[in-house]
Amino acid sequence: MEKISTDAFPLTMHSSEKQETICIFGTGDFGRSLGLKMLQCGYSIVFGSRTPRMSSLLPNGAEVMSYSDAAQKSDIIIIAVHREHYDFLTELTEVLNGKILVDVSNNLKINQYPESNAEYLAQLVPGTHVVKAFNTISAWALQSGALDASRQVFICGNDSKAKQRVMDVVRSLGLTPLDKGSLVAANEIENYPLQLFPMWKFPFYLSAVLCVFFFFYCVIREVIYPYVHEKRDRTFRLPISIPNRVFPIAALTLLALVYLPGVIAAILQLYRGTKYRRFPDWLDHWMLCRKQLGLIALGFAFLHVLYTLVIPIRYYVRWTWNNRTVTQAITKKEDPFSTTTSWLSDSYVALGMLGFFLFVLLGITSLPSVSNTVNWREFRFVQHQGLFRRVVCSDDQNIGASVSASILPVNIQG
Amino acid sequence: MEKISTDAFPLTMHSSEKQETICIFGTGDFGRSLGLKMLQCGYSIVFGSRTPRMSSLLPNGAEVMSYSDAAQKSDIIIIAVHREHYDFLTELTEVLNGKILVDVSNNLKINQYPESNAEYLAQLVPGTHVVKAFNTISAWALQSGALDASRQVFICGNDSKAKQRVMDVVRSLGLTPLDKGSLVAANEIENYPLQLFPMWKFPFYLSAVLCVFFFFYCVIREVIYPYVHEKRDRTFRLPISIPNRVFPIAALTLLALVYLPGVIAAILQLYRGTKYRRFPDWLDHWMLCRKQLGLIALGFAFLHVLYTLVIPIRYYVRWTWNNRTVTQAITKKEDPFSTTTSWLSDSYVALGMLGFFLFVLLGITSLPSVSNTVNWREFRFVQHQGLFRRVVCSDDQNIGASVSASILPVNIQG
Amino acid sequence: MEKISTDAFPLTMHSSEKQETICIFGTGDFGRSLGLKMLQCGYSIVFGSRTPRMSSLLPNGAEVMSYSDAAQKSDIIIIAVHREHYDFLTELTEVLNGKILVDVSNNLKINQYPESNAEYLAQLVPGTHVVKAFNTISAWALQSGALDASRQVFICGNDSKAKQRVMDVVRSLGLTPLDKGSLVAANEIENYPLQLFPMWKFPFYLSAVLCVFFFFYCVIREVIYPYVHEKRDRTFRLPISIPNRVFPIAALTLLALVYLPGVIAAILQLYRGTKYRRFPDWLDHWMLCRKQLGLIALGFAFLHVLYTLVIPIRYYVRWTWNNRTVTQAITKKEDPFSTTTSWLSDSYVALGMLGFFLFVLLGITSLPSVSNTVNWREFRFVQHQGLFRRVVCSDDQNIGASVSASILPVNIQG
Repeated sequence: MEKISTDAFPLTMHSSEKQETICIFGTGDFGRSLGLKMLQCGYSIVFGSRTPRMSSLLPNGAEVMSYSDAAQKSDIIIIAVHREHYDFLTELTEVLNGKILVDVSNNLKINQYPESNAEYLAQLVPGTHVVKAFNTISAWALQSGALDASRQVFICGNDSKAKQRVMDVVRSLGLTPLDKGSLVAANEIENYPLQLFPMWKFPFYLSAVLCVFFFFYCVIREVIYPYVHEKRDRTFRLPISIPNRVFPIAALTLLALVYLPGVIAAILQLYRGTKYRRFPDWLDHWMLCRKQLGLIALGFAFLHVLYTLVIPIRYYVRWTWNNRTVTQAITKKEDPFSTTTSWLSDSYVALGMLGFFLFVLLGITSLPSVSNTVNWREFRFVQHQGLFRRVVCSDDQNIGASVSASILPVNIQG
Repeated sequence: MEKISTDAFPLTMHSSEKQETICIFGTGDFGRSLGLKMLQCGYSIVFGSRTPRMSSLLPNGAEVMSYSDAAQKSDIIIIAVHREHYDFLTELTEVLNGKILVDVSNNLKINQYPESNAEYLAQLVPGTHVVKAFNTISAWALQSGALDASRQVFICGNDSKAKQRVMDVVRSLGLTPLDKGSLVAANEIENYPLQLFPMWKFPFYLSAVLCVFFFFYCVIREVIYPYVHEKRDRTFRLPISIPNRVFPIAALTLLALVYLPGVIAAILQLYRGTKYRRFPDWLDHWMLCRKQLGLIALGFAFLHVLYTLVIPIRYYVRWTWNNRTVTQAITKKEDPFSTTTSWLSDSYVALGMLGFFLFVLLGITSLPSVSNTVNWREFRFVQHQGLFRRVVCSDDQNIGASVSASILPVNIQG
Repeated sequence: MEKISTDAFPLTMHSSEKQETICIFGTGDFGRSLGLKMLQCGYSIVFGSRTPRMSSLLPNGAEVMSYSDAAQKSDIIIIAVHREHYDFLTELTEVLNGKILVDVSNNLKINQYPESNAEYLAQLVPGTHVVKAFNTISAWALQSGALDASRQVFICGNDSKAKQRVMDVVRSLGLTPLDKGSLVAANEIENYPLQLFPMWKFPFYLSAVLCVFFFFYCVIREVIYPYVHEKRDRTFRLPISIPNRVFPIAALTLLALVYLPGVIAAILQLYRGTKYRRFPDWLDHWMLCRKQLGLIALGFAFLHVLYTLVIPIRYYVRWTWNNRTVTQAITKKEDPFSTTTSWLSDSYVALGMLGFFLFVLLGITSLPSVSNTVNWREFRFVQHQGLFRRVVCSDDQNIGASVSASILPVNIQG
């Protein structure tokens, strides 16, 4: 077997000395935080600044000098200035030639500029290897060491060696680099930290509207109406009884909305006679947030289960049961046992529990790490179970009605 | 520090223009879907077809031409034809020389051919760089944009640059490439989409058989026997009481089957006097599906908990409790409080809940993303907890017997 | 588009024949297990040994020869000997030149030597490509095929081609290679298998101390005091009633400890007037284990919910309720319904359930695979929800007091 040729340029030059120098352009909050973190991890840091004399608050052990002096100290230069001030780099083209420029910038709005900041930088200083990195990491998190959200650092760049060098720096800071490919991916990476649960917005507002509507409907029907007609104070139903009606209805409605867009899409395709035309935007968005709709439905189902299991602990329920028993004892009249009622009540509850169990299973398979281990054949199999579940769960919802509406009142008024 | 040498061949040639051309051989369902998706993501697409004139239903904006014309337009060629029709590629050897051929094919059965489709393709057209990709993605999912199951695209190939190019295409379609190594891995990748929960089959059938057996045993003992002997209608026990006996027994049995193969393996190794011989196939398979057995056991335990917590809501139970109280009130005879019964009942329930809690913890550590963060020392530590749990959980199972058999009847018949 | 240049040295030399030879130095337990596994996966194995004649128990099909003979058979050499015996390799420098040495060694203590074993090896035999791998895999797991804990094999090395070769071997054994960068990472990789839940130790001991303290406090107050003063046997409160007081208090205290260090850190920064100084070590460690503190708090909250839902099943509670009803029936005095009590009881329970629901949500987002999909803006959003939760959950804790202290006694003594 032939000898393995070594790379002409080793991945890490100074693995033994470990005192690699990294240059940071810009002495703002993020640049200082990153510099401090790198110093703590054994790098030596050189800051490049427009006004080196006036830079203050820099971490101990870091040097500050002019841009061109700083750039000569290292072949990895982190550009921690705003995109609007990138222009000064054109004057440094010569000294930057062949160096790795790390673009850490973010924008204020999604797709603020026609091209990504990193691509703009690459055009501005042509002879360099631009790598996008660190933009998803918060300055506050770097300082406080509280990297709870995500240790992932998205990396992209056209030069694979440059990328490797930056990924090694990222790793030595205790973060996890994730190669997202060539510089084309920079746009996506820059938009990432600006998103706030983009797929959750519509399901969230929808479920809020559903809850509010059904809550007020139930309040009118079960609190205000009895008060107006019979002057009875039923407000104690507000904290548990009425929410326990709203939750199952909301869960059922959201679950229906998970399966509805698939049906609409199928009808649309049949009507159009082709599968090769885009769906309208609203349908597209609806189909993309089905998972979120389903998970919110699962949340309501979970609350419904908790609110139902707590029934026998409630003062109101125990008072009702107690009074009924006392009345029976005083009048010496025992209830005969009804097999039919027992069957009905138990079947309702049993189907509800099985439905909830299958729903929880479906929820577990939607965890990213679980769904990644599932292939298409398996996913479709689980989906058919889902269809079965739809039938079962509609009974789960009935229980919402049944437990609070049919079973209890029988005993309460009985 | 010395200057970084650039790669002679950049990873993406046209990052600025972005109008890279990709050629697709074959105008079947998958080829058309993939083409449409790529067009939407900014690529220009050229279809290669045996009969370019007759190809219809192609997405707007794509060109169709003969195989050799199409191949000249791009250096990435996606082979979206069945393996049986690969032969025509031998005639194109010259025009395909040096190009990247992407094999997207799947088979109908696991290990249908002696070598994988991708390796066969590489032998057929020697001068090319064959990359296996996209075979785990469904055509339907590509069209509808509903990539819920998995956005992972397994990639393998012998040429790392070719692999990089294909991975960049995969990323720009919004999918996640996963490098599985050299072309040897193609066989595994091609078998992947044909699997249907392979490790779940045996545990699933086993638990189904267990459930059916114990269900009928309980039905005979608690429904049919009392009916035949005393003409009492006990069918109302079917929906909840009897399942709540079957679930804990099934959970306990499955849990025992999780730990049994380890014991058998240890005995076998002691008997053989060596650790360096393979176990028989049945033992091997059994050991590999222990995790699945344990998770199904957890499912049964979860159902047992739900079915137990729901006890005081059930009509039958409330009727029994109510009647007992009424009888006591009428006969003016109060039950004395028994500290022993209280201790027994509470200990049963408490141990059951602790056992369930530890079982849930164990279930959480079996989530792929959690178990990946656990090292061997930690895993063995959790396993010893598991042995402890075995002791505790057997009490959990007793509760199944206890709650429905010992505690309730005491009150029901009392 | 230009032709793609092939790599001079292909990633896998023998993809078609697949009979690649791998050399293993050392015939200890790990070397033999690794050799057996590799033989089963289609490699041919050559063992290098100091005393080839005396080596026994080797897997069938493997050859044994002297170190230098074995080294000539393969260009991947796995060094399965202890670091203390690496010296013999200096004599083989010539025959090892240009080969890939795979360091699989582990130490007995964290940071036992000044440099990592792999870096020591690289200094000892300069002309080779040292790759660190396999050290996190257990010999027992390799034999028994029971790789439940983690299939991840951490790889690091300075030569990317050598790393690729070893990663391909790892993949063909059915394991998942994870590139950790250059050889500098070897130290971290070698420390990894020696850790036992490092971040969990402090939260675990703290919660144990909390539990024991509050348990004995409650025992003295509710069991020993009534016994001494009134000679009443209240020991039946030990299995459920008292734990159900300890759990919510522990959960609340731990939850407070999750948010406290952030406040202390902020005060410290304000006092110091700068964000750019390290926190003291105790605060640093405290901040790093906040997630673990929160998860243990969630565990206690989960147990509190189980212990609360089980209340109406308990013999003691049912006996109390039953007796109260019988007494009312005998004295023919019915309780009037109190809307205020109903409001109080239901609000306590409802807030507790909502708090638990939000707590579970927060727990789900802390799963590694979920938190990796959350960006910084989203994480901060969830954290603010967490602050809200803090308010709600303190009510959840009240329920611990309320359900067992206020609601029940009202009925028990009523």
